[in-house]
Amino acid sequence: MIKVGVVGGTGYTGVELLRLLALHPQVQLAVITSRGEAGTAVADLFPNLRRYIDLAFSEPDPVALAGCDLVFFATPNGIAMQMTRELVDAGVRIVDLAADFRLQDPALWQQWYGMPHACEELLAEAVYGLPEMNREAISSARLVANPGCYPTAVQLGFLPLLEAGSVGTDVLIADCKSGVSGAGRGASVGALLAETAESMKAYAVPGHRHLPEIRQGLAQICRKDVGLTFVPHLTPMIRGIHATLYAHLDDQGADLQALYETRYAAEPFVDVLPAGSHPETRSVKGANYCRIAVHRAPDSSQVVVLSVIDNLVKGAAGQAVQNMNIMFGLDETSGLRTIALMP
Amino acid sequence: MIKVGVVGGTGYTGVELLRLLALHPQVQLAVITSRGEAGTAVADLFPNLRRYIDLAFSEPDPVALAGCDLVFFATPNGIAMQMTRELVDAGVRIVDLAADFRLQDPALWQQWYGMPHACEELLAEAVYGLPEMNREAISSARLVANPGCYPTAVQLGFLPLLEAGSVGTDVLIADCKSGVSGAGRGASVGALLAETAESMKAYAVPGHRHLPEIRQGLAQICRKDVGLTFVPHLTPMIRGIHATLYAHLDDQGADLQALYETRYAAEPFVDVLPAGSHPETRSVKGANYCRIAVHRAPDSSQVVVLSVIDNLVKGAAGQAVQNMNIMFGLDETSGLRTIALMP
Amino acid sequence: MIKVGVVGGTGYTGVELLRLLALHPQVQLAVITSRGEAGTAVADLFPNLRRYIDLAFSEPDPVALAGCDLVFFATPNGIAMQMTRELVDAGVRIVDLAADFRLQDPALWQQWYGMPHACEELLAEAVYGLPEMNREAISSARLVANPGCYPTAVQLGFLPLLEAGSVGTDVLIADCKSGVSGAGRGASVGALLAETAESMKAYAVPGHRHLPEIRQGLAQICRKDVGLTFVPHLTPMIRGIHATLYAHLDDQGADLQALYETRYAAEPFVDVLPAGSHPETRSVKGANYCRIAVHRAPDSSQVVVLSVIDNLVKGAAGQAVQNMNIMFGLDETSGLRTIALMP
Amino acid sequence: MIKVGVVGGTGYTGVELLRLLALHPQVQLAVITSRGEAGTAVADLFPNLRRYIDLAFSEPDPVALAGCDLVFFATPNGIAMQMTRELVDAGVRIVDLAADFRLQDPALWQQWYGMPHACEELLAEAVYGLPEMNREAISSARLVANPGCYPTAVQLGFLPLLEAGSVGTDVLIADCKSGVSGAGRGASVGALLAETAESMKAYAVPGHRHLPEIRQGLAQICRKDVGLTFVPHLTPMIRGIHATLYAHLDDQGADLQALYETRYAAEPFVDVLPAGSHPETRSVKGANYCRIAVHRAPDSSQVVVLSVIDNLVKGAAGQAVQNMNIMFGLDETSGLRTIALMP
Repeated sequence: MIKVGVVGGTGYTGVELLRLLALHPQVQLAVITSRGEAGTAVADLFPNLRRYIDLAFSEPDPVALAGCDLVFFATPNGIAMQMTRELVDAGVRIVDLAADFRLQDPALWQQWYGMPHACEELLAEAVYGLPEMNREAISSARLVANPGCYPTAVQLGFLPLLEAGSVGTDVLIADCKSGVSGAGRGASVGALLAETAESMKAYAVPGHRHLPEIRQGLAQICRKDVGLTFVPHLTPMIRGIHATLYAHLDDQGADLQALYETRYAAEPFVDVLPAGSHPETRSVKGANYCRIAVHRAPDSSQVVVLSVIDNLVKGAAGQAVQNMNIMFGLDETSGLRTIALMP
Repeated sequence: MIKVGVVGGTGYTGVELLRLLALHPQVQLAVITSRGEAGTAVADLFPNLRRYIDLAFSEPDPVALAGCDLVFFATPNGIAMQMTRELVDAGVRIVDLAADFRLQDPALWQQWYGMPHACEELLAEAVYGLPEMNREAISSARLVANPGCYPTAVQLGFLPLLEAGSVGTDVLIADCKSGVSGAGRGASVGALLAETAESMKAYAVPGHRHLPEIRQGLAQICRKDVGLTFVPHLTPMIRGIHATLYAHLDDQGADLQALYETRYAAEPFVDVLPAGSHPETRSVKGANYCRIAVHRAPDSSQVVVLSVIDNLVKGAAGQAVQNMNIMFGLDETSGLRTIALMP
Repeated sequence: MIKVGVVGGTGYTGVELLRLLALHPQVQLAVITSRGEAGTAVADLFPNLRRYIDLAFSEPDPVALAGCDLVFFATPNGIAMQMTRELVDAGVRIVDLAADFRLQDPALWQQWYGMPHACEELLAEAVYGLPEMNREAISSARLVANPGCYPTAVQLGFLPLLEAGSVGTDVLIADCKSGVSGAGRGASVGALLAETAESMKAYAVPGHRHLPEIRQGLAQICRKDVGLTFVPHLTPMIRGIHATLYAHLDDQGADLQALYETRYAAEPFVDVLPAGSHPETRSVKGANYCRIAVHRAPDSSQVVVLSVIDNLVKGAAGQAVQNMNIMFGLDETSGLRTIALMP
Repeated sequence: MIKVGVVGGTGYTGVELLRLLALHPQVQLAVITSRGEAGTAVADLFPNLRRYIDLAFSEPDPVALAGCDLVFFATPNGIAMQMTRELVDAGVRIVDLAADFRLQDPALWQQWYGMPHACEELLAEAVYGLPEMNREAISSARLVANPGCYPTAVQLGFLPLLEAGSVGTDVLIADCKSGVSGAGRGASVGALLAETAESMKAYAVPGHRHLPEIRQGLAQICRKDVGLTFVPHLTPMIRGIHATLYAHLDDQGADLQALYETRYAAEPFVDVLPAGSHPETRSVKGANYCRIAVHRAPDSSQVVVLSVIDNLVKGAAGQAVQNMNIMFGLDETSGLRTIALMP
């Protein structure tokens, strides 16, 4: 059994992580911290966990955390980087679900996150936790930076095209639609049901924090900078990301369906749909899959890729568990063989 | 392994049953029938099942079904009763998720379902599959009538009060709210998103088919007829039933919280919440629990019971699996230890 | 033209009031106050009002308000009672959409609202603004207490039965379902889309502030105290209240349909549906109607009344405008002839 | 008063048209036809129209329709073209809300709509009813082809850029999101709440009927063919279209904000938002506006235009009324000065 701690268990990625870990056959949940809810039984805050988790939230305690094999950070950005050094030195492995270790350039991090990085010395060591790109590095990593939700859907969608060099890289467009849980569990007017139900809007067109993260990932695939336009939209649903990706097909003869199927044939959590399909976000609701379909736009040289994930699962907690499984040599699907709720 | 057949796997109770059975450790799914979709891969119709179910829908074939240990009927009302006799004679055990064997009086059945009963001779043998009332009979049953969704929520909510004789039985009120999946997966104007989202309405106030079913169940508990007013409402959500139950408290000194906690202490799937709670339907979304809270109305002699289930799980497919587990002597929670999605 | 001021225009009742007043042919909007948004153009906060309202929010200014013919308070509870005395003395008429003047007993007010009443001397004069009960008193009132949303739906639903003495008054049950906008526009975790969509729950069963308000109103109709059980529920939609009302029919021969049709025949905003109907909340979305259907429960002596309103219109801003129309001798429907959005 | 007939009043564009016409000060509703609902009171099918429309649906009667000044067709594609010749000859003016007269090339029409065109001789005369492009021609038209919902949002979004020649026309991308009411009021599994709520998906990527319509319109603006990729998505809400448009900016020095504001300065129903804005579909819910914001993507030469409408209003019935107003020399905003519901 892997002894696991969760720092910051009261947000949506936190409770989703707890849902998955509570049923993971090789995990012992040892500690769940929350400054704001210390002393509250976890199942009092999240009644879906009644009969599954008996722990109460506790104040973050370095000693208790140091006794874990693995600590997940499900904290706001900027917290994990303050505690990582000490835990890593104590031999604890880390999966950070926040953005602290996603960008390799600390100046870029400071530019987008508005604070200096507190742990630059571990940036180079941190492994970007997208298993489909970095599985081997993850397996031996001490510190994994779990990807953002949009970056997961977009990178998995573009990956085969870019690896194969099939498309131009100057004009890549990612038009992404997210459910409201992506805004987190904090109280805010903008995420009220009465504000967001029955409405659709783009946001952060002038610049979203996931833009540099996606650009970094795509550039690593291409080994050169890419031109990316990224427009996120708020969609009136709880869970789900639908990324609609556009690129100019340079190789007009490419068999795109075969390209995707081959690239992801061995991947346990990337599912390439039959040609002509349109994946629905509900087909991954509560499950760790990324489902992808690839199309050519009619009478056009544009490729259109449709990539869907559950932002809280493959886009956050599920991918974190997948990374844990890889890090500890478990079956990569352990604890993750759940089926999406339909309807 | 129990060899299982599912007749009528294309509706919402069908696909939910498949979701649960696909991950059940003691089940081998042998046959899934559908006249309308015969030949279609199950996972083509329900992409959430990709990588979990490789079967295709087949025409209902008595021989194939007779080779099963258990057959679930997830068919419209009136189908199971035509096939049950033959299967039971072949030694197959049956769980019918439709209404065919729920009412013990065939005349009452004909009155509410508009057709003569085709298998009256098995009505007396059929066991009403509410484990919290009939566990022992279920364990040896050849034929289990799986309860309706509203009846499950209402009976579990009233059960402790009626068993204890704490309330008057002349005026019992069940004001029930259901998600739209309760209307089934058939094409209908009334269940379109554009008709049902952003709206609430009562329906069938002059008489709903679950009324005689609930009355029959409550009368068995009380050993006398009860006066029940049942008003179902359509709620703009996919899953969930919220039953709000009203009764006059005759025993003013009763400790209702203790009554409920004691009655359900050993039940794996009935969860009595702490005093003062208000259960949310989302706390059981995708899970087999019934969560209950009991209140006294302020300045009044009315008891108010709040009882929530997922209509497709504890209200249908989950309870069917629970019944199967009991019938075959398995751990009653086998295949049912899932945690509701929150958010 | 009536010169109108709105105090507290940033909440949902406020913006709904502005939507109605902006198109009211006899209204000149003179001042819209908000401490928090002073200086912001109203249409910047609420873009639906672009091209209709050019005003900016201003600090509440007694002099500017004293220049109005009528001031609406769309403020949190406890604000209006501090400013009313001065405005009334200046000859300004008042419609308070909050609860400050709804309860005639200041001790009861303090018990439920947690603060002493700041303007007890005007309580006796304040008219409860339910036109269907108090039209004449409203017409000459200086100060109108606009009813709460639940109280409007419940009182209009019970009114004919209680006036006619057709039902017992010891056990009246009001099972009410409200959209989330009833929780207001304040940031709160409990009203997030991710918390409330796809879920249903009761709340405040131990006691809701609308309980004493409804009881007071029903007692005035009956000229005696009534026994009322009131259970509100949160429903995953933006607007709408559905009140399902239960009472014991004493007069078994009563023609309930005729009773309701006759009582409301002359009412411009109460619409009694044909016998056997089930009103939908969407049929009043954005409109000032209360639609009502009356049923007898099958095999029972219970009357079931279904009463729906838009909580922000007939349950708040629309009724406030209706009251203004009555107070100033205008056509009662002026500015209120809008048709609900369907779908 | 204009005497108006509506052919096919039972769909969503039909009932929305009735909502607008019922309150239009210069319209007399003379006849509303429906083969399927002939004899039913309109307000029985659509209770929001109670007290506003007393008519019943009638069988389509050429004589009755010939007595109208204007007939709206809110029928499925392929109906209007069979009745237009006769009505036009009788001096009746026509606004067709279906697609029958949108494409000028009958071969193209047959290709996309799967049937030969029944009235080719009027195609040349038919005016495409986008007032912002064709106001003058509309004013004298006998036959107006009311634009599709997606085409309205997309063309209004691209119009200023294309007229000014600011962008490349080889790669224009329209990523569009629509509410479910766009699928119509017909019974279909795919539009059930339980299928579409809590999910997002693209559809018709291999080709949607609005693609040739948009291409035709954009080509007229540019006076040359354009390369357009159009991907529609189904969004879990009732009303609203959000078009997110991408183009390559050739003129890097262009002042896009000024370009849009100038182009639409005189338009009553196109509202250019301040720089940096993100329009929400709810800001036009129930109203005839198109709200637009124009952005440059960060670090990129892409223009991103955000264009929102209510698919049933500016995307259908509202635009039809706007066209009627223009055809009959009325104030273009007559009957259309409604404010969107927020929340």
